[in-house]
Amino acid sequence: MKIENDLILRAARGESVERTPVWMMRQAGRILPEYREVRSKLSGFIELVETPELAAEVTLQPVHLLGVDAAIIFSDILVIPQAMGCAYQMIEQKGPWFENTIRSQADLKSLHIADPASDLAFVTDAIRIAKKELNNRVPLIGFAGAPWTIMAYMTEGSGSKTFSVARKILYTEPAFAHKLLGMITESTIAYLKAQVEAGADMLQIFDSWAGILSPALYEEFSLPYIKQICEAIDEVPVTVFAKGAFFARELLGKLPCRTIGLDWNMDILESRKLLGPDKTLQGNLDPCLLYADHETIRNSTIEMLKAFGPNKHIANLGHGVYPDTDPDSVRVFIETVKTYRHS
Amino acid sequence: MKIENDLILRAARGESVERTPVWMMRQAGRILPEYREVRSKLSGFIELVETPELAAEVTLQPVHLLGVDAAIIFSDILVIPQAMGCAYQMIEQKGPWFENTIRSQADLKSLHIADPASDLAFVTDAIRIAKKELNNRVPLIGFAGAPWTIMAYMTEGSGSKTFSVARKILYTEPAFAHKLLGMITESTIAYLKAQVEAGADMLQIFDSWAGILSPALYEEFSLPYIKQICEAIDEVPVTVFAKGAFFARELLGKLPCRTIGLDWNMDILESRKLLGPDKTLQGNLDPCLLYADHETIRNSTIEMLKAFGPNKHIANLGHGVYPDTDPDSVRVFIETVKTYRHS
Repeated sequence: MKIENDLILRAARGESVERTPVWMMRQAGRILPEYREVRSKLSGFIELVETPELAAEVTLQPVHLLGVDAAIIFSDILVIPQAMGCAYQMIEQKGPWFENTIRSQADLKSLHIADPASDLAFVTDAIRIAKKELNNRVPLIGFAGAPWTIMAYMTEGSGSKTFSVARKILYTEPAFAHKLLGMITESTIAYLKAQVEAGADMLQIFDSWAGILSPALYEEFSLPYIKQICEAIDEVPVTVFAKGAFFARELLGKLPCRTIGLDWNMDILESRKLLGPDKTLQGNLDPCLLYADHETIRNSTIEMLKAFGPNKHIANLGHGVYPDTDPDSVRVFIETVKTYRHS
Repeated sequence: MKIENDLILRAARGESVERTPVWMMRQAGRILPEYREVRSKLSGFIELVETPELAAEVTLQPVHLLGVDAAIIFSDILVIPQAMGCAYQMIEQKGPWFENTIRSQADLKSLHIADPASDLAFVTDAIRIAKKELNNRVPLIGFAGAPWTIMAYMTEGSGSKTFSVARKILYTEPAFAHKLLGMITESTIAYLKAQVEAGADMLQIFDSWAGILSPALYEEFSLPYIKQICEAIDEVPVTVFAKGAFFARELLGKLPCRTIGLDWNMDILESRKLLGPDKTLQGNLDPCLLYADHETIRNSTIEMLKAFGPNKHIANLGHGVYPDTDPDSVRVFIETVKTYRHS
């Protein structure tokens, strides 16, 4: 079944496109009053994640209301630990919190490899509904956290500025870390394959806590597991977004995936040089720029588009859109990308 | 008056040294039981900062108890906003909190340029006492926050993962931002000069939140003010530690200062290449590594020393030592540096 607007898929495959496609990380979320209305009827964030009809509904909102070139399924990277037997809560204003952390070989006994059919059906159901409602208008993006980022939450037990508990384990219990990372990787591969089977046209791996590792730790504990995932998925194009991993760009360029996401700290031309000519790049406007006046947003967006060039680029922010951003400012960003033509 | 062990000063000036000198960011602090004992008798962190005799006492502890090659005055970068009229509290487990934030031109009326003699005498007094008690055994380091980092706290009003309020202002109110940064810079220069006059042998500027800015914002709103400070201080060697500013290393290499600090994300050889041959480099062991067993600490420290080479290096961690680090592990790090000889 042909997707009407397949710009993002073509850009990801490195084909030439009439114009640069655009979407935004966290586009299905609190920036939209329509999202907040759906959310207000529920007890919390996790209830929304686990209710397929509503997750699908908020997935489609930015396509209708903002005009983005792709939908991304509304979900959370922490469904994987939960599916493996390590439940979490999402505490308002504070973030995720795990009652039981996984810090030793003994703790591994409480975990199992996630079975998407029994443990994560709410996500694949949401994908099926969203896919149907999208009616092939734009592609649907599925996603998962990178194993290191998931391990960071499972060991730390919550968000953290330094994730020093998680990092400590890499130095003190490397064998345990590799075992846990292996289990997360296996679960994630099964999960992503189920997402593709349910209808995801493209996948993104979020390594949100890449940037707190030293280059050596990143090479040992994160990259090999992302590579395993990329190798296992050949059905659809995969994007890897390793936030803060400026030091790993040359190695990220060698991953068997199609697209690499850049955060707003990474210089575009330098990143292209380090990553090589083959990859499609995604990003990387500073989400804070959307607080500026419309002319500044327009000029900075055009500057970014020029730096990336006409092909092998998917326009996005350098991180998720901030919840208090004015939707009209978001529309200026999106319209600027959609109307700009490289001369 | 000659300092007995002036290795750090000589390394900072680029002179050749018999061995690499070593100290640790946050060495005067919670890792030492002796610090916790002093602290436990007081109402809070700020009381310790503002009591010169006790601040001097904890400043000297790591020299006696850990054998580091320099003392750093026990204080806080946020004494500057306080001295300018923007008071803060330090809330246990949470961090700094400002009752009144500075977010507009009108808010500037509540501020004044800090006068070290009247607003910051507790720091210069602490320096004088510490200097006397050190008895020229090792140099004493003074410090201040970089203007951008100080502005980030004054505008945001607390710590933050994204400092999106602070960054928003850079896009929406650049003229106001420059005015505030100018006032902070002027206050900081006066403050650092007062520290030197009181006895500081060396100064460090901490740009703790450098890493959340895009390269363009960093060049406009942080670097020029650090440069002004470096230009104003010619009495003693200055170190600039811009955490996370990997993207600015070439420009940091052009600052009129002697030493550049590296965080643990920054590759040593690449950083040397980007910063050029002239600067002394400081850093950069991952503070988490001090959780590992002693042999791992020893091996990783030697690996680091080899990568930096015999001269123009001041050994340190890539960030402050974590409070729950075992002092014996710290001693292994310090002793490894002090006994290693480059062949």
